[in-house]
Amino acid sequence: MKISIVGATGYTGAELLRLLAAHPVAEILYITSESQPDTPIHEIYPHLTRFCEKRLASLADLDAIATESQVIFIGLPHGHAMEVGRKATAINPHVKIIDLGADYRFKNFDIYEQWYKVPHTHRQAQAVYGLTELNRSQVKQAAIVGNPGCYTTASILALAPLVKAGLIDLRSIIIDAKSGVSGAGRGLSLGSHFTELFESVKAYNVAGHRHTPEIEAVLGELAGQELVINFTPHLIPVARGILSTCYAQLRDGVSPEAVDAAYSSLYGDEYFVRLLGRGGYPVTKNTRGTNFCDLGWHVDKRTGRVIAIAAIDNLVKGAAGQAIQNMNVMFAIEERTGLDNAPLYP
Amino acid sequence: MKISIVGATGYTGAELLRLLAAHPVAEILYITSESQPDTPIHEIYPHLTRFCEKRLASLADLDAIATESQVIFIGLPHGHAMEVGRKATAINPHVKIIDLGADYRFKNFDIYEQWYKVPHTHRQAQAVYGLTELNRSQVKQAAIVGNPGCYTTASILALAPLVKAGLIDLRSIIIDAKSGVSGAGRGLSLGSHFTELFESVKAYNVAGHRHTPEIEAVLGELAGQELVINFTPHLIPVARGILSTCYAQLRDGVSPEAVDAAYSSLYGDEYFVRLLGRGGYPVTKNTRGTNFCDLGWHVDKRTGRVIAIAAIDNLVKGAAGQAIQNMNVMFAIEERTGLDNAPLYP
Amino acid sequence: MKISIVGATGYTGAELLRLLAAHPVAEILYITSESQPDTPIHEIYPHLTRFCEKRLASLADLDAIATESQVIFIGLPHGHAMEVGRKATAINPHVKIIDLGADYRFKNFDIYEQWYKVPHTHRQAQAVYGLTELNRSQVKQAAIVGNPGCYTTASILALAPLVKAGLIDLRSIIIDAKSGVSGAGRGLSLGSHFTELFESVKAYNVAGHRHTPEIEAVLGELAGQELVINFTPHLIPVARGILSTCYAQLRDGVSPEAVDAAYSSLYGDEYFVRLLGRGGYPVTKNTRGTNFCDLGWHVDKRTGRVIAIAAIDNLVKGAAGQAIQNMNVMFAIEERTGLDNAPLYP
Amino acid sequence: MKISIVGATGYTGAELLRLLAAHPVAEILYITSESQPDTPIHEIYPHLTRFCEKRLASLADLDAIATESQVIFIGLPHGHAMEVGRKATAINPHVKIIDLGADYRFKNFDIYEQWYKVPHTHRQAQAVYGLTELNRSQVKQAAIVGNPGCYTTASILALAPLVKAGLIDLRSIIIDAKSGVSGAGRGLSLGSHFTELFESVKAYNVAGHRHTPEIEAVLGELAGQELVINFTPHLIPVARGILSTCYAQLRDGVSPEAVDAAYSSLYGDEYFVRLLGRGGYPVTKNTRGTNFCDLGWHVDKRTGRVIAIAAIDNLVKGAAGQAIQNMNVMFAIEERTGLDNAPLYP
Repeated sequence: MKISIVGATGYTGAELLRLLAAHPVAEILYITSESQPDTPIHEIYPHLTRFCEKRLASLADLDAIATESQVIFIGLPHGHAMEVGRKATAINPHVKIIDLGADYRFKNFDIYEQWYKVPHTHRQAQAVYGLTELNRSQVKQAAIVGNPGCYTTASILALAPLVKAGLIDLRSIIIDAKSGVSGAGRGLSLGSHFTELFESVKAYNVAGHRHTPEIEAVLGELAGQELVINFTPHLIPVARGILSTCYAQLRDGVSPEAVDAAYSSLYGDEYFVRLLGRGGYPVTKNTRGTNFCDLGWHVDKRTGRVIAIAAIDNLVKGAAGQAIQNMNVMFAIEERTGLDNAPLYP
Repeated sequence: MKISIVGATGYTGAELLRLLAAHPVAEILYITSESQPDTPIHEIYPHLTRFCEKRLASLADLDAIATESQVIFIGLPHGHAMEVGRKATAINPHVKIIDLGADYRFKNFDIYEQWYKVPHTHRQAQAVYGLTELNRSQVKQAAIVGNPGCYTTASILALAPLVKAGLIDLRSIIIDAKSGVSGAGRGLSLGSHFTELFESVKAYNVAGHRHTPEIEAVLGELAGQELVINFTPHLIPVARGILSTCYAQLRDGVSPEAVDAAYSSLYGDEYFVRLLGRGGYPVTKNTRGTNFCDLGWHVDKRTGRVIAIAAIDNLVKGAAGQAIQNMNVMFAIEERTGLDNAPLYP
Repeated sequence: MKISIVGATGYTGAELLRLLAAHPVAEILYITSESQPDTPIHEIYPHLTRFCEKRLASLADLDAIATESQVIFIGLPHGHAMEVGRKATAINPHVKIIDLGADYRFKNFDIYEQWYKVPHTHRQAQAVYGLTELNRSQVKQAAIVGNPGCYTTASILALAPLVKAGLIDLRSIIIDAKSGVSGAGRGLSLGSHFTELFESVKAYNVAGHRHTPEIEAVLGELAGQELVINFTPHLIPVARGILSTCYAQLRDGVSPEAVDAAYSSLYGDEYFVRLLGRGGYPVTKNTRGTNFCDLGWHVDKRTGRVIAIAAIDNLVKGAAGQAIQNMNVMFAIEERTGLDNAPLYP
Repeated sequence: MKISIVGATGYTGAELLRLLAAHPVAEILYITSESQPDTPIHEIYPHLTRFCEKRLASLADLDAIATESQVIFIGLPHGHAMEVGRKATAINPHVKIIDLGADYRFKNFDIYEQWYKVPHTHRQAQAVYGLTELNRSQVKQAAIVGNPGCYTTASILALAPLVKAGLIDLRSIIIDAKSGVSGAGRGLSLGSHFTELFESVKAYNVAGHRHTPEIEAVLGELAGQELVINFTPHLIPVARGILSTCYAQLRDGVSPEAVDAAYSSLYGDEYFVRLLGRGGYPVTKNTRGTNFCDLGWHVDKRTGRVIAIAAIDNLVKGAAGQAIQNMNVMFAIEERTGLDNAPLYP
């Protein structure tokens, strides 16, 4: 499997390299960076010493990259990724694209443009939304995959069984998510400055985070109707991990057992979803470094609500790991390949 | 002001001692511990060296404690506190009691007994619920104060303006709270073991935490009708700080400005409540070590919900600080006395 | 006491404002920032809301600052501070200067210029090195104080008794120090990016840190002869705190009791030095938010070495707190004034 | 490879299970616990779900364990491990033992008994000290391996080249080490209570830590003469990682290049030792979750000292990883097998 990574110096790119180093058939051809071209990657990320010591190429090499690669992972900011996707597939119609940003996540381009404030320039792409557990059969056929956001992966996995089985009031969905700081990337900002975050917690982007329409679109499709949700992200002082606590009103007469059945039915055979059952408490650290999503749910008889909780590692199941999972599916490689490691605990 | 602390070796007791050391009229008479009687407190808490080096007494000294003290703070587990309260007030009807646990928080003893699983043995106490900003005039007259829980303080302060002004659907309240580990106390447990919590987040006691009925009772009283809520606590790997993110459906036609007005009206003159306004983001660290509650709120037009967020230091406004604030009110001392320090940031 | 702070938007400036807010005779006249002039300080540091909401001035206001202030604290990078000191004292010969940087710390300007790579432009200043416990009588008379570095404060306090009493081989001193990240300031860098530091420890500037010559100069003066040391700083993932572990060979025949006596003799009457004694273990958190230096020492009979350990809060005793302590001494205010608070624990 | 783990519920046991899950020829036969026998291990460590869900056996099963296993890892407290080693090898003389505790680390039993305060009861064991890089050829032949301590692994790897090449004054060695909290195990204590460690650093066991004689014995053997050192461990608030900063006086005339050569010569071909070179700064996080030891060294011309720094993950190269490395060597499996994963960064 000949692989290139365009935009490899962010945390997502580094995580792809970490994971692909353990993938038996992965061969890294090109990795690019516009800011630090020609630098060996292990000078930027010394932890990769012995695993990837390749020198960074740049987008100037896109011809070679598109021609020689079977799959390109894109780790660029939104707006830029679709440009690379468009050009690369023009150069080589057979190259597959897995974009870790938002450019290929939306079927409705109006919503994309409204939330991301840029025109969509690759509308003909026919991309598939790569939440593997929900869209496996389409991913299998996909030429371009829009890899889901980190918050969205956790939140959708938590809510999909309830929505799909029609168990909840669709107007009642509230998602309160807590994320480690690596989700904000390696770019410097006061908001990611160690001393500012230490011993602190805060919410941000209330009612305005861009993962909101992504969750709405996917759940809406499952429900067969449009819906709006509240999604509130919080920053907690850890490097990795997302915990997504999801609230919804159960429809009248829905029993706790029906809730249980919805989870079992959708995920009973999924390797990367570990069901902790009703009353179970997912812990982000139990997924650290892995592609697992741990799920637990609770039914509150007093209020008639269900509280579903998902834990993931935002850089793995929320980004690089799910991207590799999708690659495996697209190329008919056994889905766990390269991803079947136990979490780093404690 | 002659003060004793019964049950002084927990974090709340130590925090009382830290804060009272800066209180100009506080004089500590007795501090007690059943597990380590006769030990100087600064051997247990070396940070108190130079501030409190008193030897611990025990409940065997309750006669002297009750007789000589003007106020007794109680930092014992529920069930035990009301026994001390009952006996101390029998010994000296003039001694005032401020209990930092749950025993004196409930007017409805059935609810107390149902959630705390012990019979209430001091029903004649006529205790006042010590959320100072809401109950100042009753606290002023109180002989016994039930000091609010940490989660409840943050959550009620966030929601009270909305409930009081009748702006929200009372059936729609959801509170998602995040707390530092000091709230779990100094008692050893795997759940408070450093290595288990590090780089991790989890929910606990979903739909079953004992602060739930406390919030319901206070908000219900403000609303003039019973209500049930969802309250979900989470543990985050910091020592201090609670962030409470509260969701509610606005009633039809309630404008954002009406929400703003509700907050200004209730808290505009409150020193310890700092209003960050609509769109504001409270940060727990901005309250670290202090009695402040920082409040911000957001109105989501898409869903019609209000999201109100409160940040406090769980050991100060959520426990020892509010207890001292209540003491000041009870004894007609200027309310900020001993509590007017700036937060420890960064 | 009319006070201005030139360069107030770094962590040291913010800490001065936090501490001075509790100082009964402090009145803040001007605070300056070249990067954010005219901004209210509590917009930059919201924790200061209610404590300092002053608008930032700039160096363009130096005339007024120097004329109206009794004391100016300088929180500027080295090289710039001495320019402000020179100009301010030219404008008003009576204004006192307390510089929190390195410009006024060295009597030997050659050493300053060699380590700091800039010419010294205020050689006539007659500055006093403000390690209060060692230089109190000179500080009392000083017009300009060079406030010590954070590492140096901890390290010198740990070693001074041994050096002064002639108990150790002066060629054998090794200092291994561990610091929280606030010492690196608020300026953005990958080295202070949350995700990079999380769950990590590293040394930096081995054999090259600029606090080395400062420690050597002070200890050399105490010893009455030149000496060289090894000083190794480490970065640990906390916001505040320095632990300095100091090693030296005891001279032949020096008894453990002689070591004890050296500490008691030098610090027995010092309020801000808390002696934990032989076998004592200082803990940085026991000094959090305060001006204390906790000291413990150990004698290893097997190797004949003494290991002395100091813990401080780098922003307080290592910077802003000691600066205020010096101000108190310079203006004959009781030395503890504004600094007599208990540590924030836990 | 049929493997059992006696004492599997500590962090070292859990880490063995995590790592062995990725080892292609490892088959776990028995895992034991005296405190929680008969419990499935993934109920105790939910992160192991899908990787090891075996029920715990107990020492009552030692006959079967010793008979059926090819190798037994022992994760018991000192004193107990050698009893198991003695009995197991009596039951089956062919079973190999890798003890992760101290019982088989010392050739000189007097030193063991003096520091560990128990009689040594398996003196005939002919154990090999399993610091793989130094003792590979003996490990290859070993029936019993005493796996090194975590601090000792880092410290010895840092100093061995200097000692072996005769470059340093053997009386001048000082080791200042910083460790994450997982090294203290899963047993509850106030010293490992989250809130106590948060935002704090401290030294402990100065001049008395049991890894001292272990380091002295190994370095002394390399030097061909007895030596004593200073070793000071510190606790830092992270879960994993040890940084060992080692100081020694260079002998007269030793050039920096000679120091470089000593490291290259000893470790140039070692996979698990990554040389960062002279001036290099090891970072614990760059080794997180892996068997690597990163090494850098500095020569201070002013003092004539060398400062050598090692970073490891205490649970991997400092415990379970090196144990598996030793197993691979003992059974002629390629040494990296099961250990060749990239560090978890960031």
